[in-house]
Amino acid sequence: MSEVAKTVQALPNIPVTEIAALIKRALVVVGVPADDAGQVAALMAESDARGADAHGVFRLPQYVKQIQDGAVNPRPSIQIVHEKPGTALVDGDNALGHLVMKRATELAVEKARKCGIAWVGTRRSNHAGPAQLYPRMAAEQDMIGIYFCVGNANLVPPWGGTEVLLSTNPISIAVPALEHPSIVLDMATTNTAFGKVRLKAQRNEPMPEGWMIDRQGQPLTDAKRASEGFLLPIGGPKGYGLALMFGLLAGTLNGAAFGRDVIDYIVDSKTASNTGQAIMAVDIAAFADVQEFKQNVDQVWNTMKSSPTLPGVDEVRLPGERSENLYRERMAKGVPLGAPLRKVLDELADRLGIQKLQ
Amino acid sequence: MSEVAKTVQALPNIPVTEIAALIKRALVVVGVPADDAGQVAALMAESDARGADAHGVFRLPQYVKQIQDGAVNPRPSIQIVHEKPGTALVDGDNALGHLVMKRATELAVEKARKCGIAWVGTRRSNHAGPAQLYPRMAAEQDMIGIYFCVGNANLVPPWGGTEVLLSTNPISIAVPALEHPSIVLDMATTNTAFGKVRLKAQRNEPMPEGWMIDRQGQPLTDAKRASEGFLLPIGGPKGYGLALMFGLLAGTLNGAAFGRDVIDYIVDSKTASNTGQAIMAVDIAAFADVQEFKQNVDQVWNTMKSSPTLPGVDEVRLPGERSENLYRERMAKGVPLGAPLRKVLDELADRLGIQKLQ
Repeated sequence: MSEVAKTVQALPNIPVTEIAALIKRALVVVGVPADDAGQVAALMAESDARGADAHGVFRLPQYVKQIQDGAVNPRPSIQIVHEKPGTALVDGDNALGHLVMKRATELAVEKARKCGIAWVGTRRSNHAGPAQLYPRMAAEQDMIGIYFCVGNANLVPPWGGTEVLLSTNPISIAVPALEHPSIVLDMATTNTAFGKVRLKAQRNEPMPEGWMIDRQGQPLTDAKRASEGFLLPIGGPKGYGLALMFGLLAGTLNGAAFGRDVIDYIVDSKTASNTGQAIMAVDIAAFADVQEFKQNVDQVWNTMKSSPTLPGVDEVRLPGERSENLYRERMAKGVPLGAPLRKVLDELADRLGIQKLQ
Repeated sequence: MSEVAKTVQALPNIPVTEIAALIKRALVVVGVPADDAGQVAALMAESDARGADAHGVFRLPQYVKQIQDGAVNPRPSIQIVHEKPGTALVDGDNALGHLVMKRATELAVEKARKCGIAWVGTRRSNHAGPAQLYPRMAAEQDMIGIYFCVGNANLVPPWGGTEVLLSTNPISIAVPALEHPSIVLDMATTNTAFGKVRLKAQRNEPMPEGWMIDRQGQPLTDAKRASEGFLLPIGGPKGYGLALMFGLLAGTLNGAAFGRDVIDYIVDSKTASNTGQAIMAVDIAAFADVQEFKQNVDQVWNTMKSSPTLPGVDEVRLPGERSENLYRERMAKGVPLGAPLRKVLDELADRLGIQKLQ
């Protein structure tokens, strides 16, 4: 084992509550009201617990920078701009995206109780963590949740093109079961996330074909040359189509950024991102007996699991299964944070004059 | 040029109205009321006009067989089973799928006018042609249409598995523009359709890698060995996840077939398929000024088109663009039907004692 690996292994896991507490301290000290900071912190720490490591506390330094540089409003007034019995358009007033999306999801669930279905869009929102957070909220209320958003960095050209006009615009769908965990899809519309490309570059490893192409349309496997190419959408023109449609539905429909308007907040922490998102809640009770439906979802789970497997595959997995297993493990045993992230978070705490992770 | 190619070329195009008239004659003679037959015929002929050649008049012999063999009910009583202000569950009474989905879509549009959004599910429906037909109806009413369904034949295992438990469960989304055609995505969740595999087998051509794998997980490129393998979902586990979720939403939620219950009506024309579908209508006016929104969609179209292209690509295309171009051409000049299809349709007309295509 290398010295680095030993160091990483030696670091103790951090309890999820401690991660949340650090996030809350940091947000409060840059001006976010305590109650709002607590809500954002809980959702960010949940992201870490669920294994969405690139969407949890990892993002804290960037959010703090956006607040300090003026792109994110620490004391927003989130407003409903338009409303119908089953819909709403929410203006986030540049709030942290978690606050906007939590409000939007609660509104969608409330409206779906009456209408059977609701769709709430957001504009002037911000990055809100992993997509799955919000459909899961609906699933906890015996509803099906569906979410999509305009991603915060353009990394994908339209199919056949060479200008990056699209993000990895993700979709998440959560469907509750009875005995089994909710089935929760949370996926980008590209074959890989850009974070994985960065990791390959750090490790000096080649990328598999299918992740990226260069400006000549040839497979790009040297991760260090990533800036010379583009991410590939799933299924080629199909993934392009999905990313485009989610952009129209979560961006254009809401008056939020899409296409050349998209601001990459990692590069530009001063300009408001005008992020757009959409959450749908579908009340299961409007279609079926809730208990019976959930049993049928259990049955679908069991059916998929019962499939024989390809050589080398131990078992079929359901969407969200890995995340749920990690969640149970990490809620009990804490979250492993790597040494580089710990260092960044310690430096942030020093800079803000708040207590570090212990 | 071969004799066969000359024969194919020599066949005149058939006007869309003539295709519709043939379909109507055939359906009426097997017991479908004239008005219902006319509605189905119009939608099937529109499918041919839009270039969805495998989903138009090509399917007529199969639908006729299903009616004659008892799987499809020519005189159905389509009923709303459950209803909320923004939702409905429609029982199709084994009607031709087009009738069920047309009713479901009209209901969704009507409900969305009041609620801003509506979601209508179907059970005991049947194959309803290409997915795009129904979202397009919503788009014509200044709404965004979203459709998905459980496909009629299981061809895809869960990711890592070897039992075909999933269909190519498609999604279609239609968004209206002002100067440009509606942007209309219509895609299966697999890299290719099984029809294209059959075509490769007929032509003795190899399939590209990525279309299918065999039971060992190896690329399968010999189309004649298709029965030894499976279609690959787009993006691997992602396409599996989408197909599974659309199955839960269009099948399980509606009490329709999904998983081992799915009936392949091409193999079994006697058993009711209990097909499930879902259509959503989102009223643009609930979120934005309709005119302004459509102008913004034009702008998205123009932005995508303005991207420089990869070598060998003439221009970026928008989802639905090819279909729209074909529609304009075929509405003006008729639909080219190949000799084998003409022969099948002529034989059907003879068998039913109705007038053939001229």
